[in-house]
Amino acid sequence: MIEPKMPKGFRDSLPAQEIKRQRFEARLKGVFESYGFVPIDTPVIEYTDVLLGKGGGETDKQIFHFTDNGGREVALRFDLTVPLARFVSAHQAELHFPFKRYHIAKVFRGEKPQKGRYREFVQCDFDIVGDDSAASDFEIISMMAASLKALDAGPFKIHVSHRGLLNDFLARHRIRDKSADILRAIDKLQKTGIDEIKSELSANGLDGGQIEALIAYISPNDSPAGSPKGDAGALEFKKQLDRLESQLGGETAASIRMKEVLQLIDACGLGDCVMFDPSITRGLDYYTGVVFETFLERDAAIGSVCSGGRYNNLTGLYSAKTFPGVGACVGIDRLMAAMDGSDQAQTQSSVDVVFFSQCLENMAQTQRMAAALRQKGLRCDVYLGHGKAKEQYDYAAGKSASYAVLSVTDGADGVAQVKNLCTRKITDGLDAQAVAAMVKARC
Amino acid sequence: MIEPKMPKGFRDSLPAQEIKRQRFEARLKGVFESYGFVPIDTPVIEYTDVLLGKGGGETDKQIFHFTDNGGREVALRFDLTVPLARFVSAHQAELHFPFKRYHIAKVFRGEKPQKGRYREFVQCDFDIVGDDSAASDFEIISMMAASLKALDAGPFKIHVSHRGLLNDFLARHRIRDKSADILRAIDKLQKTGIDEIKSELSANGLDGGQIEALIAYISPNDSPAGSPKGDAGALEFKKQLDRLESQLGGETAASIRMKEVLQLIDACGLGDCVMFDPSITRGLDYYTGVVFETFLERDAAIGSVCSGGRYNNLTGLYSAKTFPGVGACVGIDRLMAAMDGSDQAQTQSSVDVVFFSQCLENMAQTQRMAAALRQKGLRCDVYLGHGKAKEQYDYAAGKSASYAVLSVTDGADGVAQVKNLCTRKITDGLDAQAVAAMVKARC
Repeated sequence: MIEPKMPKGFRDSLPAQEIKRQRFEARLKGVFESYGFVPIDTPVIEYTDVLLGKGGGETDKQIFHFTDNGGREVALRFDLTVPLARFVSAHQAELHFPFKRYHIAKVFRGEKPQKGRYREFVQCDFDIVGDDSAASDFEIISMMAASLKALDAGPFKIHVSHRGLLNDFLARHRIRDKSADILRAIDKLQKTGIDEIKSELSANGLDGGQIEALIAYISPNDSPAGSPKGDAGALEFKKQLDRLESQLGGETAASIRMKEVLQLIDACGLGDCVMFDPSITRGLDYYTGVVFETFLERDAAIGSVCSGGRYNNLTGLYSAKTFPGVGACVGIDRLMAAMDGSDQAQTQSSVDVVFFSQCLENMAQTQRMAAALRQKGLRCDVYLGHGKAKEQYDYAAGKSASYAVLSVTDGADGVAQVKNLCTRKITDGLDAQAVAAMVKARC
Repeated sequence: MIEPKMPKGFRDSLPAQEIKRQRFEARLKGVFESYGFVPIDTPVIEYTDVLLGKGGGETDKQIFHFTDNGGREVALRFDLTVPLARFVSAHQAELHFPFKRYHIAKVFRGEKPQKGRYREFVQCDFDIVGDDSAASDFEIISMMAASLKALDAGPFKIHVSHRGLLNDFLARHRIRDKSADILRAIDKLQKTGIDEIKSELSANGLDGGQIEALIAYISPNDSPAGSPKGDAGALEFKKQLDRLESQLGGETAASIRMKEVLQLIDACGLGDCVMFDPSITRGLDYYTGVVFETFLERDAAIGSVCSGGRYNNLTGLYSAKTFPGVGACVGIDRLMAAMDGSDQAQTQSSVDVVFFSQCLENMAQTQRMAAALRQKGLRCDVYLGHGKAKEQYDYAAGKSASYAVLSVTDGADGVAQVKNLCTRKITDGLDAQAVAAMVKARC
């Protein structure tokens, strides 16, 4: 006998979990489609050099790669952004730009499994490719907010910054080179705390004055603990930007873009769920403009549940023409983990009516009535086992069914005895029409 | 620059195709859930020895397998049935039996790519685990028929047989051993023709009389070309079974089961889309009872679009307790290929309204009106490029939008100028409420 085990970092999705996951995905699809975004899919397997690009480094170690039967070096996709760049480059003649697509699919990373982190997980990405404007940056932020609202995730805050602002700051303070290392050090702020970042910056050659300036730049705002409401959020955002511009010695291209994005956020009433946070840098090298992370009030410790940013050079790897892009990714697994136990995470009924065991002579009548109820939009499960009454009640409870058909006897179209599993009331002599009416009225 | 190519046998799904695929999947989900089936998911990656079991042989060569970073032998799933057996064995204490699940997911096979065959494709499986009865066999057939009807696939015929009948036949004709090879030879009937099967059977040691008897057994019925309608189908089914029982010298367990299944098919009005076809054996070793394949009248040459059968020993590999199972799989890729060009395969609109390019000053007003229309259930796409009018009309046509908002000017809540893209009529001075009413009324 073979032990039915799974590789470390992988997991099954049981029905209760899978029903929840599909409901989350359906709501996200609804939001993405309400913005006119269209779905695509790409292969799970790609050529290793296509996925890694010039890459290597951190990502390289984390990918599942192997040699296929034909001797080709292939790998499992580790995100949906690199495949998007490959897709847009390959199909540019067939697409209309700006190309707005969403993609909900599994990705694979060989990283060490830990709480809430798996080697296989679902990403829900939405991106605009082919436009570099504040309107595109804003539309992605607007979709992030709409997604979290559609999932009933409770209060949240989208933290926004711009890679260019940090570069402007580094240039002004004559901190050159190693900017990638500095970005990564700052990106760890939420995880490690200020002291470790200071020593990491020092190790990267920054002097005391530079470190102090940088810490001041990325430090969270002194605003009161409660989240600012309504216009207060937008004002706060603007105040931070003004402070920043004075630190930079005036407007820069990045600060102008941020002000344009802010104007749209403010005008569209999203000021209370967005904040400017210069400590957000996103570790990945490919971001070139705005960057976002999102934290739930319910569980900020679980980390960002919706992140992304602008990447204007990504397709340059595969195509003579470069396409600017901006997008974000909803971390559906983290969100589900954070919302576990909330109302939204309650078990859903997977069936309306369970037909209890029938002898084979009545099976045809039972199946006909079940078919008639399905035509009327009810989900009907005919119990096909040989269990005793208790097992059948457990079965119905396991699927959160509200009604049981205890028997079907012959009539013109069958006559059913139906039990309301909440009130335990039994009603006899019902045809399919009457059963459907009872279940729909929940009486 | 890296060429944006994909490994052989893999492909991208562009928006028009992906929208169709998702619509097919949603309809199948609707059918499965109307029967009370619940979704599960399993990892794409499993341990190689778990997937292959005692296996090896044909399957072995076709799977993508590799050694992961931790030195473990892993492989990509090649179907959803073996993972179901592993899943049921691992989670039996958490499931209610009979366990009715569906699973729509990608599987991977290293076989030679050919027309309509890919190395990565989607399977839509539905199975009942934990019951061995004619009612379960029937329910799967009923779902196969309901699935094809829900997809508007046009007229189809489900070909049904029983592995046990063939074994009874082989025993009666004293054909022992090599039954797996004989099954595989018969399974090729539709592909290779009678002469090749004869020589293959001869190579497997059957004498002339045995071969003639076997050919007579599996030969298609002499019924007229048109498909029998209504009761005629059930009668035909019964006549074939009677003929078979006379060949077998009386009833057997398998022939009794087939008659019970027939009775339910007949009683539930499915006689006209099901036929008994002794040449159906399904190549795979794990089937032990009824087996099914389904052919479209529209395109029978594309092969079976929905296949399956009963497998009563599958979990025995992983669990001391064995669970009988029966199920089928909708071949969504083949169905889509067969239906290409049909009404059902027409491009779907992915957006209701496209907002044409606005200067940044009006962008906030535009975004506010788009948000208001989304609240009213419309899919709104704000064009974010800098293209000329023609490009914007092409963009709207590419998404099959019916309306364009040509401009939004300031008003209490914005005032739009809207163009019906079919009639070319332009209406001015509309607020969000009026735009929504116009689009919903399609006027």
